[in-house]
Amino acid sequence: MVQRPRGTRDFTPKVMARRLAFEQLLEERARRHGFSRIQTPIFESLDLFTAKSGPGIVSQLYAFEDKSERQLTLRPELTAPVMRMIAEEGMQMLQKPLRLSYYGQCYRYEESKKGRYREFFQYGVELIGEAGPLAEAEVIALAIDMLDACGLENWEIRIGHVGILKGALTGLGLSADTPAGANEPPVASAMRFLDKGDDAGLAQLFTNNGINPEHAAPLRALADLEGGIETIEPAREILSSLAGVSLEALDDLQTTLNAVAALAPAPPSLAVDLTVARGLDYYTGMVFEVKVPELGGEGQVLGGGSYKLLHLFGLPDLDPSCGFGLGFDRVLLALEAQAEASGRSEVVPGETDPKGLVAFIPFGIDSATVLPIVGGLRNAGERIELELRGRKIPKAMKWANSIGCQFTVVVGPRDLESGQAMVKNLQSGEQRAVGLTTDAIAEAIQAMR
Amino acid sequence: MVQRPRGTRDFTPKVMARRLAFEQLLEERARRHGFSRIQTPIFESLDLFTAKSGPGIVSQLYAFEDKSERQLTLRPELTAPVMRMIAEEGMQMLQKPLRLSYYGQCYRYEESKKGRYREFFQYGVELIGEAGPLAEAEVIALAIDMLDACGLENWEIRIGHVGILKGALTGLGLSADTPAGANEPPVASAMRFLDKGDDAGLAQLFTNNGINPEHAAPLRALADLEGGIETIEPAREILSSLAGVSLEALDDLQTTLNAVAALAPAPPSLAVDLTVARGLDYYTGMVFEVKVPELGGEGQVLGGGSYKLLHLFGLPDLDPSCGFGLGFDRVLLALEAQAEASGRSEVVPGETDPKGLVAFIPFGIDSATVLPIVGGLRNAGERIELELRGRKIPKAMKWANSIGCQFTVVVGPRDLESGQAMVKNLQSGEQRAVGLTTDAIAEAIQAMR
Repeated sequence: MVQRPRGTRDFTPKVMARRLAFEQLLEERARRHGFSRIQTPIFESLDLFTAKSGPGIVSQLYAFEDKSERQLTLRPELTAPVMRMIAEEGMQMLQKPLRLSYYGQCYRYEESKKGRYREFFQYGVELIGEAGPLAEAEVIALAIDMLDACGLENWEIRIGHVGILKGALTGLGLSADTPAGANEPPVASAMRFLDKGDDAGLAQLFTNNGINPEHAAPLRALADLEGGIETIEPAREILSSLAGVSLEALDDLQTTLNAVAALAPAPPSLAVDLTVARGLDYYTGMVFEVKVPELGGEGQVLGGGSYKLLHLFGLPDLDPSCGFGLGFDRVLLALEAQAEASGRSEVVPGETDPKGLVAFIPFGIDSATVLPIVGGLRNAGERIELELRGRKIPKAMKWANSIGCQFTVVVGPRDLESGQAMVKNLQSGEQRAVGLTTDAIAEAIQAMR
Repeated sequence: MVQRPRGTRDFTPKVMARRLAFEQLLEERARRHGFSRIQTPIFESLDLFTAKSGPGIVSQLYAFEDKSERQLTLRPELTAPVMRMIAEEGMQMLQKPLRLSYYGQCYRYEESKKGRYREFFQYGVELIGEAGPLAEAEVIALAIDMLDACGLENWEIRIGHVGILKGALTGLGLSADTPAGANEPPVASAMRFLDKGDDAGLAQLFTNNGINPEHAAPLRALADLEGGIETIEPAREILSSLAGVSLEALDDLQTTLNAVAALAPAPPSLAVDLTVARGLDYYTGMVFEVKVPELGGEGQVLGGGSYKLLHLFGLPDLDPSCGFGLGFDRVLLALEAQAEASGRSEVVPGETDPKGLVAFIPFGIDSATVLPIVGGLRNAGERIELELRGRKIPKAMKWANSIGCQFTVVVGPRDLESGQAMVKNLQSGEQRAVGLTTDAIAEAIQAMR
């Protein structure tokens, strides 16, 4: 028997109802924040992703050649395609900023495990063509609004700014350029020492670059700061103690954090963390991540920040942009785990359809006589599943229950004779005999809903 | 500059709003008819499609090998994946019939031209596990309901039944099995002669198979019948004149057509056409197609029928099923052409959002002071685009117009002093000065909408 490819999934009606409700919730929130949906192809030129992430990414891609030997690949992420689209469609000519949202399948070639699939789904937004603390706050506020609206609990958002530690290091005189014969700039070495907790290495690096090694201690203190918005003040004190270090990035971060607090609901936990680096070179300012402990491991469900990528497409003027990617599958997984732990059946708000299914059961009569009513009820917006097998009443009721119907409408020979139908609410057990017309049945369903 | 792969498309916000509205309309109609959405992966094992369509299909596929040398392919259509999913998920064990809907990208490797893309979008439904005229009518009624609801005009639905001509031929004694040394069964040869108008060939075939060649004329008359439901009676007369020919398939088609008329709105044009064959071997009963003349060429936008495919997955008992595929891009193309011809700006009902965008413009003040109101309005469901660039009023109003806002909310220094905001409806020009609170602004927007 032909099987589903490894690392991919099928979504049954029940699971899919949840996913559609979640997608709709995210889209509704994006729209409230002025974002509009766009869509790009599932595959792109391989060049697009090597230009953004370097040749090392190829081993994780589903790359292939088309029949004209063009190098293509299933997309591993959505930011690069969105940038490619902006350049190609001339969208940089539109009024700025652009507020774009997107959703779709992405692909990575790796061992599949729980919550990590080879075909996975990403939702994201980009605010393009406007930099600065307020733009960054708009993006973070949307992320918080989405996670708050979907009912996720116990999540933590960590917000930093790649400019603060880097600014302190360059302010002290450390170079951001790679010297001849070296692998990386001294600033990058210093960031590694800070990340690994290697204070001796940091002091030595300072000495080698003609910087007072006593400055290593305040930088360590800066990297180790923990807490919420109140962390800004101690950070300011430390930075102020270092001659030649600008406070601009820290001021920006403070403005962003204040604007987020004004714009968005309070998240369950918000931490300022100056070591958030997102591991990617193209981030230029604010960076942020959201983690959920229930997922185990890194537990990350969302990440983003301000970045420069458009120059890859010859469009320097729009930089930087700000955006985030939301792990659609991972948030759902966390929501499912939390719903299960608290015994809830609805995982995403809106998942349960208020307009429940109605089983229309013609029993022992020619179905043709009731078809105009079936059509009429559908036309009035009801969801009607017509019984097609001629099941007898007990089996038909069992069938209606098993497919999750909220109502049954039964019309048997005597009903037909007396011009009536029996409408029953399967949850409450209430039933009514009503006239055999579209209007009478629709009215009864609405009254008993 | 890296470009979009050939034959694929990017969808801008305006186009995407239309596509999302169309998808939602189709889904809403499917739900009213009791169908539920499922989803399968973008790529499948190559075997899946060669099993269904033969090895000839490979030249039209985006086939590739994964790193473990598994033969995979981007899916060219969605029926085979749905069948694979039913078998793999054990859905044949659920209460029948299953009413499933699906939507997504499909891929074919061919020269791209207007309305034909290498990445295209297909919507479809399958009613699985229940055969017969009423099940077939349910599927046709849904197709008609969808095309009616989306506002398509001037379309023609052609409905046939592959069993009628085949039944007449086998009833006359022609074999449906391929004789040793031949390429095809005599029935298939006869169908070809009927299709090509080769009456002499048909008569000769009859003679060679020991059948009275005079029977060729009534079969020609049957194939040439044209018209609506009234065509059933002449077809019945012809079939009745042929000894040994069953009327069962024709009776079924008549039952189906009557049920469709009772269940669905009247289509602009409905034709009974006994030569509709859909070109595919796996159709077993009713078959139907929808064409739109505006598209030129074949103009087909929808096609389906009753078929047997589950046996490919070792599941004989559920056969036959009934379903259709709707060319999402092609219907949209036809709708756009018709909207353009009649000067309408809305292509799909629901495309224009009743909750228009609101530009919130802090002018000459610290934006931070109004952020709680921006957050509050979003929380109340309004769509707010916050002005981030500090544009002056004329430029800000121009920007708000260019991004399609319905309202502006302006707060300047004097407004802030007197605790008010200026709310303006950009379409009507009406404006009101209201208190600088979320509630007052939300109320003004609703009142002027």
